[in-house]
Amino acid sequence: MRTTLELGQEIGYGKLSIEAVAARAGASKHTIYRRWPSKGALLLDSLLSLHETDLEFPDTGDLRADLRAQVYAAVDLLGQPPFGHLFQALVGEAQYDPQVAASLNERFIAPYTDKTVARLKTAQDQGQLSPDFDLDLGMTLLSGPLYFQFLITQEPLTRERIDRLHHALFTGLAPDPRVRRDP
Amino acid sequence: MRTTLELGQEIGYGKLSIEAVAARAGASKHTIYRRWPSKGALLLDSLLSLHETDLEFPDTGDLRADLRAQVYAAVDLLGQPPFGHLFQALVGEAQYDPQVAASLNERFIAPYTDKTVARLKTAQDQGQLSPDFDLDLGMTLLSGPLYFQFLITQEPLTRERIDRLHHALFTGLAPDPRVRRDP
Repeated sequence: MRTTLELGQEIGYGKLSIEAVAARAGASKHTIYRRWPSKGALLLDSLLSLHETDLEFPDTGDLRADLRAQVYAAVDLLGQPPFGHLFQALVGEAQYDPQVAASLNERFIAPYTDKTVARLKTAQDQGQLSPDFDLDLGMTLLSGPLYFQFLITQEPLTRERIDRLHHALFTGLAPDPRVRRDP
Repeated sequence: MRTTLELGQEIGYGKLSIEAVAARAGASKHTIYRRWPSKGALLLDSLLSLHETDLEFPDTGDLRADLRAQVYAAVDLLGQPPFGHLFQALVGEAQYDPQVAASLNERFIAPYTDKTVARLKTAQDQGQLSPDFDLDLGMTLLSGPLYFQFLITQEPLTRERIDRLHHALFTGLAPDPRVRRDP
């Protein structure tokens, strides 16, 4: 996996192949394939091997501050080599390989979702989140815009934009707060 | 491009290559490369050649109804072959190839964003959207969650979930509507 990261940094994850990793590591292709049946599987394990991906959700008691800190940390991480390109390559592979998509979800997305929902639930119990908010939408609403910018528009995720996104999510799009409860 | 779509449907877009398309179309590889310098460029043109991708934003005067109709239509489109897999493959290529990412944004995402913002602006002028809402966040808030589900979690985008997402976006996450205006 260290070989994967080194080689990925040098030649780009697009050109990375299991064959190239095997050659660099001085191992046989078959040895590598036995453990990592696809490029995506190798990328995922490489990502998870980097301990910084343990994004523990802060709980200072202030939901807005904690969400802000969490997202800033995630975005900073994506901005540091090798994370950003590695993660992009992994998501790229997931579009082609359902096994990689399933592994990515099981080993990275789902645990992170659980932490997010747990933090939101605590906040809801403490009256910092609307009592009517469907917690199962939490991850998709908070992370969705970030992934959209990171993967699709590829615009820089500035702190200013993150703050404005959170403001809009908390304030809501409806015109009048008093009539915000939908029929 | 028709060859691309046929071949993509048969062998999957993962295995598709410019060489394979050239062979199927009875054209030389070089002819294809001259026009489409990468697989991603070929996928993008193939997607755009399908006229159904012209997702005109409805304006019935009711913003919520129009957003609902628009998103339902986009999701239905992604559910029909070849759109879903073609779009996934295109997004996959965009992770590896900045040229493809730039083309995807210029030719598909940006025009769609402009239509979205225009519809939101009209709604804002008519008092159906918060006067404080930053219109430039519109696309990322409305589309972000959908792309997240489509590309990452790969959960089915049901109408029920879309409705609940819109409800949460309009109502806002803050606990009390009267204190929703952030300090």
